[in-house]
Amino acid sequence: MSERIELKDVAEKLLEQDDILIICHKNPDGDTLGAGFALMHALNSLGKTAEVLCSDVIHERYQYMLPKLFSGSFSPKFIVTVDVAGQQLLGELAAPYAKRIDLAIDHHPSNTGFAEELWLIDDAAATCEMIFDLLEYLEIIFNQVMADCLYTGISTDTGCFKFENTSPNTHRVAARLMEYGANYKMLNNLLFESKSRRRIEIEKQALASLRYHFYEKVASITITKEQIERLEVDETDLEGITAVPRMSEGVDVGITLRQLKEGAYKVSVRTTPAADASAICARLGGGGHKRAAGCEIIGSSENVMDAVLKEVSRELGYTEYAGS
Amino acid sequence: MSERIELKDVAEKLLEQDDILIICHKNPDGDTLGAGFALMHALNSLGKTAEVLCSDVIHERYQYMLPKLFSGSFSPKFIVTVDVAGQQLLGELAAPYAKRIDLAIDHHPSNTGFAEELWLIDDAAATCEMIFDLLEYLEIIFNQVMADCLYTGISTDTGCFKFENTSPNTHRVAARLMEYGANYKMLNNLLFESKSRRRIEIEKQALASLRYHFYEKVASITITKEQIERLEVDETDLEGITAVPRMSEGVDVGITLRQLKEGAYKVSVRTTPAADASAICARLGGGGHKRAAGCEIIGSSENVMDAVLKEVSRELGYTEYAGS
Repeated sequence: MSERIELKDVAEKLLEQDDILIICHKNPDGDTLGAGFALMHALNSLGKTAEVLCSDVIHERYQYMLPKLFSGSFSPKFIVTVDVAGQQLLGELAAPYAKRIDLAIDHHPSNTGFAEELWLIDDAAATCEMIFDLLEYLEIIFNQVMADCLYTGISTDTGCFKFENTSPNTHRVAARLMEYGANYKMLNNLLFESKSRRRIEIEKQALASLRYHFYEKVASITITKEQIERLEVDETDLEGITAVPRMSEGVDVGITLRQLKEGAYKVSVRTTPAADASAICARLGGGGHKRAAGCEIIGSSENVMDAVLKEVSRELGYTEYAGS
Repeated sequence: MSERIELKDVAEKLLEQDDILIICHKNPDGDTLGAGFALMHALNSLGKTAEVLCSDVIHERYQYMLPKLFSGSFSPKFIVTVDVAGQQLLGELAAPYAKRIDLAIDHHPSNTGFAEELWLIDDAAATCEMIFDLLEYLEIIFNQVMADCLYTGISTDTGCFKFENTSPNTHRVAARLMEYGANYKMLNNLLFESKSRRRIEIEKQALASLRYHFYEKVASITITKEQIERLEVDETDLEGITAVPRMSEGVDVGITLRQLKEGAYKVSVRTTPAADASAICARLGGGGHKRAAGCEIIGSSENVMDAVLKEVSRELGYTEYAGS
C-alpha cells in the first residue's frame, strides 16, 4: 500500500526532482489529460524536464493542451501518475513503469495504492482541482494553456458543473481559472455543445429503440453491433449515451443494452436515488456505483432485457413480474 | 427614460417601503421567477408584505420556490419588476400596473427604461446574480428556499455555467449559494437532466429531419404543425430545440424551420463565430443576436429553406447557390 502524503510533501518532492515522467490513464479523458499536461507545463515553466505518457491515442480535440508526449529522450528519475485509480488502468505503453511509480495524484476513493506514495483528496471533483491547488502552492505563474488544461478536467468530470460531485470549491477554482485566461467559451462549446455526426446518428438509433416499462418508471434503449459497425461509431461517440434512457421525466431506472457480439450484451444501469444501480447489477454478476453500474449477460436481447427487468422490478419493490 | 440607480439606492428604497408588488415577465423562466421569489422571501423575512405577480401560469416544476402569488389582499405601495426588459413583457395581468412601475431590476442591456428608476448590471449573467448582491447588502439571513431560487436563475440563464455570459462572479455566487444550502443536486437534475416524454418525442422527429448542406457546414431541421399537434408539444417542450442542428461537429450554421400554419414558417438560426445569425435574419425581415436570430417566412417548406440557404450561403461567402 502507498504511504499517504499531503499537498506540501508533493510540492517539496517535485521541486527536488527533475526528468519527471507523468503518466495518464488509458482511454484518457479530459481530467487525466488536463491534469497531466497542466502539471507538465508547470514543471517546464520551472525549468524542469517533464513529459507525459499515455497508452492510448489522445483525441485531436485536445490539441489546445499543447501535448508533449514522452519520446524516450530522457531517462525518467521520478514517475507520477495523475487520475489513475489502479495499475490496470496504466495500459500497455506504461506497463514497464508499473512497479516503480513514485507518486500517484488521484481523487478516486477506490485508488488501489499501487504507487509508493499517494496524494488523494476524495472530495475533489476532479484531479485537476488538486493540480490547481498544487500549482498555486508552487507559486507557478499560470498561463492560458495551464488554465485551459485544468478547466477541461474540472468541467468534463462534473458534466460542466452539473453532476453531484460539484462543490463550492469546484466553482471557485473555475472562477480563478477563468481569471487566469481559460478560454471557457471555446472549451464549453467544444466539450459540451458539439457532437460528432456519428454520435448524432447513433443517438437517433438509440432514441428510436426507447421503450418504457413498469408504468414509465423504467426506460430502456438497445444498441446493436450492426449499428455500431455500420455507423463506424467509436467509444468516444458512445460516451454518455447510457444517460439517454434515464433522462426521460419520471424515469427512475434507465437501462442500456449494448450488443457485444451475437448473443452477448453489455448492460448499463443508471438510476435516480429511488433505486440502487449497483444492487441491480450485483445480482446479475456485475457492479459499480449506486447511480451507475453495469454487467455483461449472455442471451438474446429479449432474454437479457427480461433478466434485467426482473432485477429492476425486485429493486423497485414490485412483487410480480412475468416478463416484458 | 428611467433614472439609473445603484445597489445601495435599491437597498435603501426597499427598506423604506412596504406592501411591495414584485412583477415577473410573461412566459416566465427560471431567472425571472427565481429573482422574484427570492426577493419576496427576503422581504417577508424582514417582516414586510410582498407578493409576486406573473401574467402566465408558473410551471409546476418550480413549486420548490414556494411561490406566493398576488391575491389582491393588499394595495401595492411600491412596484418592482425583475428581469423585465420592456413593458410588452409584462403581459395581461400586469398591464394595469404598467404606468406605475417604481423600479426595474434587470440585466438586459436592451431594457427600454419603462420604470421610474432602473438598476441594471448588463454583465450580470442573470438577474438572480444581482438579487444575490442585494440580499447580501441587506444582510438577509439566507434560507434554503432563497438559495434554491437564486441558484435556479443563475444556472438556467447560463445553461448550467456553459453559456458565454458565465463570469467568474457567476461561479463565485454559485459557490456561496451552495454553502447557503441550495439543493443543487435536485435542481441540476430537475432543470438539466430530465426531459418530458413529449420533448423526447419531438426531438426524435427533429433528428429524423436533420439535413446537411454546403459540405456539412450548415445543418437544418424541420418541425411540422402536424407533429406539434399530434405529440401535444408545448413551448416548454420546444425550448432550446433550435440548438439541435448547430450541435453537429463542424456545423457553423444551424437552421430550424417550425411550421406555424400551412405555408408559414418560423425560422431560427444559430451560428458559431464563423457566421452572423442576425445578418442572415435581417435580410429575411427578422432580427436578433449574432449567434441566435430568427424571422418568419411565408411559403412551402422547400421555398422557405431555399430562401434561408441563399442568405446563409451569402453570409458564408459562397458565390453560387442554385437551390438546396
